[in-house]
Amino acid sequence: MRVKKSAQLDAILAASAARAQGKKPTAKNNRPAQSIPTLPPQQRILGLDTALRKTGWGIIDSNGRNFAPVDCGVIISPAQASLSDCLRRLNGSIKGLITRYHPDIAVIEGGFYCKNARTAIVLGTARGAVLGVLAEAELPTYEYAPRKVKQVVCGFGNASKQQVALLVAQFLNIQVANLPDDATDALALALCHAQLSGIAQGLNLGKPI
Amino acid sequence: MRVKKSAQLDAILAASAARAQGKKPTAKNNRPAQSIPTLPPQQRILGLDTALRKTGWGIIDSNGRNFAPVDCGVIISPAQASLSDCLRRLNGSIKGLITRYHPDIAVIEGGFYCKNARTAIVLGTARGAVLGVLAEAELPTYEYAPRKVKQVVCGFGNASKQQVALLVAQFLNIQVANLPDDATDALALALCHAQLSGIAQGLNLGKPI
Repeated sequence: MRVKKSAQLDAILAASAARAQGKKPTAKNNRPAQSIPTLPPQQRILGLDTALRKTGWGIIDSNGRNFAPVDCGVIISPAQASLSDCLRRLNGSIKGLITRYHPDIAVIEGGFYCKNARTAIVLGTARGAVLGVLAEAELPTYEYAPRKVKQVVCGFGNASKQQVALLVAQFLNIQVANLPDDATDALALALCHAQLSGIAQGLNLGKPI
Repeated sequence: MRVKKSAQLDAILAASAARAQGKKPTAKNNRPAQSIPTLPPQQRILGLDTALRKTGWGIIDSNGRNFAPVDCGVIISPAQASLSDCLRRLNGSIKGLITRYHPDIAVIEGGFYCKNARTAIVLGTARGAVLGVLAEAELPTYEYAPRKVKQVVCGFGNASKQQVALLVAQFLNIQVANLPDDATDALALALCHAQLSGIAQGLNLGKPI
């Protein structure tokens, strides 16, 4: 259903562009979807599931319809590490990922609900350190709520972790059984953005934060 | 009272050190405080009152008893700036301060109470970005709750903003009337740490975060 909608919209937009250029919409110009280059350019997307001591990361290449895994992992700080040590390790690791893989876009989890203000400050602290690094690297950064990621990747917002992992495995054609949950969640974030970019020429995308 | 306690403690510590070295505590060894170099070395302290769009900063030099102002100001991001822009400006400005003034220690506000989890995440985000920069610069960073700052600087935890400003002005021998509140708060944070360093050879200091 989503692909059908996208194809219709593509045809409308192509006809509209042709009209704007003063061309009469010929049968060729009017032909929907398949023959018109509607896919966004290939992009490398870095997904980050941020937490103070366990930040998952996942990188994929995508043109909005095809998705290829690049690499993934988890940045771990030991329980006895001080806050400053955790943030130093987190920032250094993310800078390392940016230098090594040259992503075009970053995606982080956001809009989560947190009852406890103290927990929220700790979560916010990790998030702030990571966002600071992404901002310095001038990487356009998008934010998606966990529910949105599940809706886009699985089709429904109440999907379980296992269901998300299953869909990530299918889309990227990888085995996720041996991957840590945080890495799978980061790949799901990247996949969510990649899929939204491919729908209606990215018209559904929000603004970078 | 505080000075008296410190002098007593200094005398006890000096006698204890002499005993440890096998020396009999002579009248000279036993002489309290005044003749024993008890002051910590001169340190440059950077106080930071962090917020997303308005971060106050204040730098002082201190040996724990004498306090000299160096500089202060506010890092401001316009209301229409995106989150990434705010963090880029914040991180860049703090890196600039570190490069220009070479502080030995940083002090930030912490342990504040925040009812609203959403506000807590925003506050935590700014705090995380700043802490990330301080951690990367390997600056030992201390954290004090607003109440603690008021207790140390003013003598009581319920002091008003005006009372804090008055004491900051007296200790640093400056006019604070024309200074922004955020800069005064940042100077108060630095002053709080400087004063704690001067009491009982810094035994009251916590660990860096």
